[in-house]
Amino acid sequence: MPTPQLAVIGGGQLARMMQQSAIGLGIDIRLLAEGPDVSAAQVVPDHLVGDYTDLDTLRAVVADAPVVTFDHEHVPPEHLRALQAEGHACRPGPDALLFAQDKGAMRSRLGELGAPCPRNAIITSPADLESFGLPAVVKTTRGGYDGKGVWVVRTDADADEAFASGRVLLAEELVDFRRELSALVARSPSGEIRSYPVVESRQADGVCAEVVAPAPDLDPALAAEARELAERIAAELDVTGILAVELFETTDGRLLVNELAMRPHNTGHWSIDGAVTSQFENHLRAVLDLPLGGTEARQPWTVMVNILGGTVSDLVAQRAVVLAAEPDVAVHLYGKSVKAGRKVGHVTAYGDDLDEVLARARRAGGLFTDGTPS
Amino acid sequence: MPTPQLAVIGGGQLARMMQQSAIGLGIDIRLLAEGPDVSAAQVVPDHLVGDYTDLDTLRAVVADAPVVTFDHEHVPPEHLRALQAEGHACRPGPDALLFAQDKGAMRSRLGELGAPCPRNAIITSPADLESFGLPAVVKTTRGGYDGKGVWVVRTDADADEAFASGRVLLAEELVDFRRELSALVARSPSGEIRSYPVVESRQADGVCAEVVAPAPDLDPALAAEARELAERIAAELDVTGILAVELFETTDGRLLVNELAMRPHNTGHWSIDGAVTSQFENHLRAVLDLPLGGTEARQPWTVMVNILGGTVSDLVAQRAVVLAAEPDVAVHLYGKSVKAGRKVGHVTAYGDDLDEVLARARRAGGLFTDGTPS
Repeated sequence: MPTPQLAVIGGGQLARMMQQSAIGLGIDIRLLAEGPDVSAAQVVPDHLVGDYTDLDTLRAVVADAPVVTFDHEHVPPEHLRALQAEGHACRPGPDALLFAQDKGAMRSRLGELGAPCPRNAIITSPADLESFGLPAVVKTTRGGYDGKGVWVVRTDADADEAFASGRVLLAEELVDFRRELSALVARSPSGEIRSYPVVESRQADGVCAEVVAPAPDLDPALAAEARELAERIAAELDVTGILAVELFETTDGRLLVNELAMRPHNTGHWSIDGAVTSQFENHLRAVLDLPLGGTEARQPWTVMVNILGGTVSDLVAQRAVVLAAEPDVAVHLYGKSVKAGRKVGHVTAYGDDLDEVLARARRAGGLFTDGTPS
Repeated sequence: MPTPQLAVIGGGQLARMMQQSAIGLGIDIRLLAEGPDVSAAQVVPDHLVGDYTDLDTLRAVVADAPVVTFDHEHVPPEHLRALQAEGHACRPGPDALLFAQDKGAMRSRLGELGAPCPRNAIITSPADLESFGLPAVVKTTRGGYDGKGVWVVRTDADADEAFASGRVLLAEELVDFRRELSALVARSPSGEIRSYPVVESRQADGVCAEVVAPAPDLDPALAAEARELAERIAAELDVTGILAVELFETTDGRLLVNELAMRPHNTGHWSIDGAVTSQFENHLRAVLDLPLGGTEARQPWTVMVNILGGTVSDLVAQRAVVLAAEPDVAVHLYGKSVKAGRKVGHVTAYGDDLDEVLARARRAGGLFTDGTPS
């Protein structure tokens, strides 16, 4: 096995898709996988199976790798500091990752930067929430994702589960928004930054269902503002690799930051087939401090539709049905078993006519989900 | 390890690039590699190391894989017949592969089909060659590639090495050609065929140096003739997977078949970044009898330049130099050590202006080869 150029912690689909780009760039990855059969372990020969919360396991994985990056944001920061002290470059580093791990820290820091955010406050009691005012969105500051750990609170009782969780809670104003946008940037340790076209992210039940690149009918001034905001956050927080800034476009035409992610992001999957350089390749180039590639779209419209586990249980068998119906849609399966609502793959279509592109992507996605075009 | 859907025999760069497409399609590959560190073994976890001329080794690799395909054309046909008899689908099969393995059989069969070929004859003695007439090209019928096993014979003495080889020899007329073209098709067992735009292949010392897609200034009638010819050969020879038909465009404007290859081919590497569906993805889709994807170019011009081993010995270190000079060129490294003239990677550029695209691709290729733009 060649000496790894990069250690990747976490064996989900993000690491799996990193490997596709790593193969082309000649990057030998060593992976820490949660289990022997997880998504990325299926495609990265040099992998260990172990627990990313265990420092000695992390040490074994990164042993002779000069740089470490991540499939997720859950590695304990103190372990990353230990790895840094032992000479490994963690990208992104623990000081940046904090703002993706802790929504309270994120809101506080973004506030200092003057980045537009929903009104927010840490709350520790129903009295705090009452003084914050209802309706509100209440979130655990740590560990939430895809709608988990998030409660829309219109009456006091709606917050019972949140307070019962025993977690630190953040209250945010319930934003009256037109749609959700996402601004992705890649940033390297030497400070090079490239931002992708701003996309529209459409959710179903708190989970990203489809992404349209670029966001249709977005005011060019607002698009530029979103890109500049994301670039500024990446620089101020010293992010290395991909930063995704999820945004609300409010009904009165403003941008508000919703969430940050410091890794390739679901709202950037369109770039694999739709951009000059995919977010996965630019993540790898960024964390290895290689010059970044072009982030422009290759055609007027690209649509990505997630395959969320539905009634189709055998995606491999269904592949033939999907490709027969939509031979030019790009299929990305994650090697995961199907569970209700689980992200098990995505499909991407592109072209000149948005309606046609959207129809093709939805048709393929629907056939993979419940066997009928959605 | 999941049960493999496909066994791939041979661990070179073609299998390596198949794996990039296999990851997206959710195809679990089992690989037979020539050594533990060969190009594809670095990126396919489920691999065995062994000798593809040994039937028991082949049996072990294909054990629970319903379909078998190839990185090269050198597996003994009798072994493939044995695997077929044991229930494995070999794609392409031994009856088709013969015409890629044996140039004498290829010429004879193409002659029967009325496919245009250089005048040719099997020769067994200098007297045979004399009666064939000089100048001529003399080739071993088996085992030659990249200019090896090929002699341009202008005087009797030029053929000494060929006759001394003890191999079966084929004499062909020395074709007066304007350039070399290549017509690639994908064909599935159920008979679906898709052909790629005809490309121009430019050689240096008998090795493909660069490919321009589509072939510039090619008469549309000749392009159509080349595609139809390749489709007809694929169907008549019952090829499954990719067939590459290398062609001469003669100075008097005719097409003549030069060589056949039954696997993804160097003249199709442009399709990874330049076509709707890459040759690697369509090869996989074809051999698994999945519907084929679009073969159209995504932009007016795509240029692929091979990285042939030169004075740059550390491609990984040189990557930063190349990407700084040409950030939008797609880099494909094969994980091979550099030896003089060895194919160790390729680069691809695309765009609207051929001169500009060619300049970018050559610059990146030159920087990877001898550290200076070529």
